[in-house]
Amino acid sequence: MVLTEFNDVVDAGILPAKGKYLRYYLLGIVDGEGSFSISIKMQPDTRFGVVIDPLFKVTQHKRNRVVLELLRRTLNCGRIVEKSGQPDILEFVVDNRRHLREKVIPFFKRYKPIIKRDEFALFTEVVEALDAGEHRDAESLKRLVRMLYEHSSERRHTLQEILREIEDREGRLLRDHKPSTL
Amino acid sequence: MVLTEFNDVVDAGILPAKGKYLRYYLLGIVDGEGSFSISIKMQPDTRFGVVIDPLFKVTQHKRNRVVLELLRRTLNCGRIVEKSGQPDILEFVVDNRRHLREKVIPFFKRYKPIIKRDEFALFTEVVEALDAGEHRDAESLKRLVRMLYEHSSERRHTLQEILREIEDREGRLLRDHKPSTL
Repeated sequence: MVLTEFNDVVDAGILPAKGKYLRYYLLGIVDGEGSFSISIKMQPDTRFGVVIDPLFKVTQHKRNRVVLELLRRTLNCGRIVEKSGQPDILEFVVDNRRHLREKVIPFFKRYKPIIKRDEFALFTEVVEALDAGEHRDAESLKRLVRMLYEHSSERRHTLQEILREIEDREGRLLRDHKPSTL
Repeated sequence: MVLTEFNDVVDAGILPAKGKYLRYYLLGIVDGEGSFSISIKMQPDTRFGVVIDPLFKVTQHKRNRVVLELLRRTLNCGRIVEKSGQPDILEFVVDNRRHLREKVIPFFKRYKPIIKRDEFALFTEVVEALDAGEHRDAESLKRLVRMLYEHSSERRHTLQEILREIEDREGRLLRDHKPSTL
């Protein structure tokens, strides 16, 4: 038996015989070389000046594009792009939050990372928190930011900078919305 | 259903439900991060002063040791060692040629690499040639060396150095074995 659904990207003879085997193979690729990352960015045009950006990514040399195509087809979302400044390197990227929630996360809840188990659990927690709108409330946003810094402090901004930015914005929002009768 | 045979190294709840799924997961790990490498070394105490050394290796941070343990159990050979000079990095290594021939190669003939397809094919060809004793004949050894340099020239010695060494040794062997009546 061969998998024919990927016929247009690869000779089925080199693939595992069943879709399920291919999905475990792809789990291994992602567990070894993928990343479930969450960046924290300063973005002045947002409510609190800070955004939390979840990103699922797998990087490969362009000669291995086929594996990224298999992943894109299997997850049925995302895009394959050249890595900035490195034309020989490709990245398969999913940053759309609905796709992360509806496609990427359910896939890896079923095909469970071993190496990236904790990284994936944190990723899921943050995507779910964002879906629940927690970034729209200063206290919840600060809680998320603190939690992310506990897991990784290798970030462009210090925790203090981020918290100060949120609190400054919060203060201004409170002043601007002070009832006019006071 | 859970895989219980790895109970002593990992909670079965985090593993794929079947051995076959785990093997495809491990194929993904190896296809992404493993290497089927063949080094060419100068070694004066050998017949032609040159040895061809096949090595199967997977590298991981020590926090992911479990994946290397799963691989070692699954292949039923090899050892896990600290990477020289990097105590946080572990390497799962198989260099024993019988184990490569009887365990590693049959495994990856069944669970076929996609990314490392050509690398594995070359590896298999060289291990089989060594098993057939081709390194004991100067012409065959030179053929193997040339083939390896065609695939990768990023090597410590130049092809010319290696070929000259083999030919010098060959010349000496021929002189030393010249029938004494001549």
